[in-house]
Amino acid sequence: MEHAVEAIKKYKRFLVTAHVNLEGDSLGSQLAMKELLEALGKKAVIVDSDPVPGHYKFLPRADEVSNNIDKKLIFDAVIVLDCPTLRRIGRVRELLKKNKPIINIDHHISNERFGGVNWVHPNASSAGEMVYRLFKNMNVPITKEVALYLYIAILTDTGSFNYDNTSSITHEIAGELLGYGLDPALVSERVYEQRSVADLKLLGLVLSTLKLSDDGGAAYLVITRKMLKDTGVDVSRSEGFINYARSIEGVKIAALFKEDPKDRKRISISFRSKGDVDVNSLASCFGGGGHIKASGCTMEGSLSGVKNKVLSKIKEVLHGRNISFK
Amino acid sequence: MEHAVEAIKKYKRFLVTAHVNLEGDSLGSQLAMKELLEALGKKAVIVDSDPVPGHYKFLPRADEVSNNIDKKLIFDAVIVLDCPTLRRIGRVRELLKKNKPIINIDHHISNERFGGVNWVHPNASSAGEMVYRLFKNMNVPITKEVALYLYIAILTDTGSFNYDNTSSITHEIAGELLGYGLDPALVSERVYEQRSVADLKLLGLVLSTLKLSDDGGAAYLVITRKMLKDTGVDVSRSEGFINYARSIEGVKIAALFKEDPKDRKRISISFRSKGDVDVNSLASCFGGGGHIKASGCTMEGSLSGVKNKVLSKIKEVLHGRNISFK
Repeated sequence: MEHAVEAIKKYKRFLVTAHVNLEGDSLGSQLAMKELLEALGKKAVIVDSDPVPGHYKFLPRADEVSNNIDKKLIFDAVIVLDCPTLRRIGRVRELLKKNKPIINIDHHISNERFGGVNWVHPNASSAGEMVYRLFKNMNVPITKEVALYLYIAILTDTGSFNYDNTSSITHEIAGELLGYGLDPALVSERVYEQRSVADLKLLGLVLSTLKLSDDGGAAYLVITRKMLKDTGVDVSRSEGFINYARSIEGVKIAALFKEDPKDRKRISISFRSKGDVDVNSLASCFGGGGHIKASGCTMEGSLSGVKNKVLSKIKEVLHGRNISFK
Repeated sequence: MEHAVEAIKKYKRFLVTAHVNLEGDSLGSQLAMKELLEALGKKAVIVDSDPVPGHYKFLPRADEVSNNIDKKLIFDAVIVLDCPTLRRIGRVRELLKKNKPIINIDHHISNERFGGVNWVHPNASSAGEMVYRLFKNMNVPITKEVALYLYIAILTDTGSFNYDNTSSITHEIAGELLGYGLDPALVSERVYEQRSVADLKLLGLVLSTLKLSDDGGAAYLVITRKMLKDTGVDVSRSEGFINYARSIEGVKIAALFKEDPKDRKRISISFRSKGDVDVNSLASCFGGGGHIKASGCTMEGSLSGVKNKVLSKIKEVLHGRNISFK
């Protein structure tokens, strides 16, 4: 952390960025970082490859997150938040210049140390928790807005304090942040209760495809192109659907097969595991990857062909026995 | 609290009970209370009207929760946890005797002060949080088992720290409890990830019934007798389904109509609200009740007849305008 603090003190104008497909942590940690830098008398611009998702537009200053890759942008250093690899910042790579140092602040254990300064803290629940520590270390007062950004970062990245990145410290910080005048129920409504009727209709259709292996150790769901067309829902709204397959008692591996809405020969597959089953190596068998408990890959072929290949591999991973899905 | 502490010190043999339809808080607070009493050298027996739900049977000593209404049971005092009214303890009322004092420990604002001692603390997140305070006040060390009971009580009663009963203190306590060696991800799996395939098939069918009012302010779902029969799922497994209707952006009132599996003329209805809409008074129009944001009632009639009555009333409550459901 000391090197990150030094670098922040040293430079004047910052480009702040994070990974593609913005969510609570990448967005909250960037907005809080901008406030930190401004409180220190610095200039900061947030540029991301993807837009702010609709349900986060209520955040103060969310409209200052730019998606404009303006090559004339002037800055002294780049702060990259919540990114294990530099590839994950997407189009913002075009703004990077050889002589502009990168400050890499991340909590992913797989972080590739791509920065000039690398503060990687895998025990932190979220990038937001790391930015919280910067506020404390640099004696910058936390405002209600900053508390909101950091609380949302922690809330969403811990799955409401249910994932294994939740610790006593996570709760201590969340408790302190609520103390700045946040209403947890109101935040929860804004973040989580923004579904559409079509989203729920799609969920209903996807749940009707649920299949369980005959030994109960694996379950899968399918999203077809037709379902997306019939409901008019964007496939990005299906985030979290796979957790329904994972939530079945006894299931160790859950899979979600998604037909690509545009490319008829492309299927993307998400994996989740419970207990100590490693779906990172499962996904890597098909050229994908991720974390031990959450991973994914993309394959070419028909839905049934891809399904057969993946389900055979799942059986192998689980116990090499010949199990079937019902 | 002092009166509760005095009463606990005074008596020797306790009957501990809580409300019908045991859930995380009623169960966790009772099991922790039994540990507290035993640590103080007292005797304690837990007797409840309903059995321990399957997904809580993993809790240590859950098998000591009795459903046997044994009128020969000997005790000096009764501790009633998490009950706004004495009616809510169900069949355990048969064990109450005139000369046996009742110690009423509860966090519901509507608590009817039915005890000889009444410690009612509406700012506590849960009955578990109140039992935690007893441990602290009486200097009884918290074991890992007690931490598990209290953590589950708090986790489930706050909807994973998302409801408006969550405060800075709630997080402080949760953080301390995790520090006794709990694995939050493992607890979450045991408590929340115990669905069956049939549960999810039922959810899929129920979601296909989703209707939204044309002004977007209300949404409802239906569970028919046929759905329960086709999936073989007990209606008690549909707890939480109503939250899907509530989670739609802009919805202020959500309703779930359930056909009674046995009585062809009986429909039970649950209500949930967002923002400041009062569904307690809505339910009371039909002889039901509950809280401002969560209530319910039971009505006689056909599904379509009951639906029409309730939906008209919802329109009235929302704005008196003539809205229709699509």
